[in-house]
Amino acid sequence: MQTLLTESLTYLETSLERYKQEIEKNIQRFIETEIDSRFREEVKHILEGGKRLRGATIMMISELLNGDKDKAMRAATAIEIVHSSSLAIDDIIDMDTKRRGKDAAWVAFGVGKTILVTNVLIPKAVEMVIPLGEKAVKEVLSTWSDVSRGEILDSYQEDADYIEVIELKTSRMYELAFVLGALSAGEERLLDTMKTIGREIGTLYQVLDDFIDTIFVKSKGEKERLSLERFNKWIGIETGNIDKDELVSKVRVIVNQYLRKLDSSIQKLPFKKLRDILSVLPYYMIQKQLSEFGLNLPLP
Amino acid sequence: MQTLLTESLTYLETSLERYKQEIEKNIQRFIETEIDSRFREEVKHILEGGKRLRGATIMMISELLNGDKDKAMRAATAIEIVHSSSLAIDDIIDMDTKRRGKDAAWVAFGVGKTILVTNVLIPKAVEMVIPLGEKAVKEVLSTWSDVSRGEILDSYQEDADYIEVIELKTSRMYELAFVLGALSAGEERLLDTMKTIGREIGTLYQVLDDFIDTIFVKSKGEKERLSLERFNKWIGIETGNIDKDELVSKVRVIVNQYLRKLDSSIQKLPFKKLRDILSVLPYYMIQKQLSEFGLNLPLP
Repeated sequence: MQTLLTESLTYLETSLERYKQEIEKNIQRFIETEIDSRFREEVKHILEGGKRLRGATIMMISELLNGDKDKAMRAATAIEIVHSSSLAIDDIIDMDTKRRGKDAAWVAFGVGKTILVTNVLIPKAVEMVIPLGEKAVKEVLSTWSDVSRGEILDSYQEDADYIEVIELKTSRMYELAFVLGALSAGEERLLDTMKTIGREIGTLYQVLDDFIDTIFVKSKGEKERLSLERFNKWIGIETGNIDKDELVSKVRVIVNQYLRKLDSSIQKLPFKKLRDILSVLPYYMIQKQLSEFGLNLPLP
Repeated sequence: MQTLLTESLTYLETSLERYKQEIEKNIQRFIETEIDSRFREEVKHILEGGKRLRGATIMMISELLNGDKDKAMRAATAIEIVHSSSLAIDDIIDMDTKRRGKDAAWVAFGVGKTILVTNVLIPKAVEMVIPLGEKAVKEVLSTWSDVSRGEILDSYQEDADYIEVIELKTSRMYELAFVLGALSAGEERLLDTMKTIGREIGTLYQVLDDFIDTIFVKSKGEKERLSLERFNKWIGIETGNIDKDELVSKVRVIVNQYLRKLDSSIQKLPFKKLRDILSVLPYYMIQKQLSEFGLNLPLP
């Protein structure tokens, strides 16, 4: 059993890294061929430097389903363009000044130009997935609308529900990755299960992210405070008087719940290799998130 | 001849007004059924109060081509949503504080929320035209990308060419109206001619708009100054030392050139009734634009 896990983890790490490089190349090609040279630098600034996890997940799922590689690459590039654009927009809303180790786009070239450049980019991303069919186009469009709605609720709606907000703001984009992976292989029958897996992984990711922010991020902006208060209320601890051990044990329970849910969703997939690889993905993601802060979570 | 013109003008005015009312109702229905009640007021603020000229043009063209009314209404609603959203964004860029007789959206509820609300709305507009087919979806996407590119060039690119900028910023949306009108009737063979007519009408509109701004608008923001300098340079007059008579005579020559171009494009259409009605549309639009400022232009 341990050998299978190690093998799957190695496969996962190797292919995500390989696809990251390929996506990077395709994004560069997109910038060189599709973007007006008069604002190419601004587009580079917004698109460069991502981990490409969502895109690489699409490529990997597509490969495991014997999907069409060109379609998968279109979807992967599109999701990274939409994701990077939404981060550039979020930074305006949250007044975050740094992103991916450099100045946020709005700091580098202003709020106005940042808004307009994202409005050039996002429709191009949607156009990119047209060859994957109407369902794919609809999914990209509704994801992007939902992510924006989630960001409105997150930033301006004090009484919004924590799970509702993070399912829109974060999980929708993971759902999209899993859905586009399946659609690039023409596997429409997997869509419901893929959506569930994506939503559960996204939610798990955001819960851990908020947990890390609560413990490690000292100076919080107004908008971030609203998010974290919502998280604290949901998990049942008192903002301003956080018992670290209590928080850790509560988060541990929730993480385990989500890992069990994920396992049962993944077992519904009719492809053994896909099941084996996706089974380790949540652990891989958690480990990456935690290790940045010197934390650790052992494999099952 | 004069009777035909008067009849066509009456038909045009009546149907544009009727369709405006119908579009208005459909936009209200969209807001009530498709928009989260927690930011419905903000959406209303952005969408309400337009002249609906682009949408009504789609409906009218579709009717003259015996098109599908449901498809035409989808396209009309979509174009009005995209157009209103782009105005809300432009007001941020230009720091314009008033729009359609009330506070600009960013003044009423902030830059951040305005950006996010447009990002909820625009993908919903694109989704709306899916029943019109892949070409329609592509046209809406590329229009929206091009309009944003035009706004970048207009606001930040001092050496951009006047015609290039207005063809992107203004004419693309008119092209879209004419294209969607034809597509709602399944008339793909008309697309090239429709695009040309839309582009020429849009350019004519913007030239007159810039002419009016040069003469009547006293206090200009930084971004507006850049646009108008580009206009003055193109038309060959000196900013800061404008000879009104010279300007009027130059604009008159250009307007007549465009009216002739438009006439020859419209004559290429294979439907008599459509030709008759579209022939008066440029005069109707010019008249509306000028009469707001007490100016006048006789029918041909």
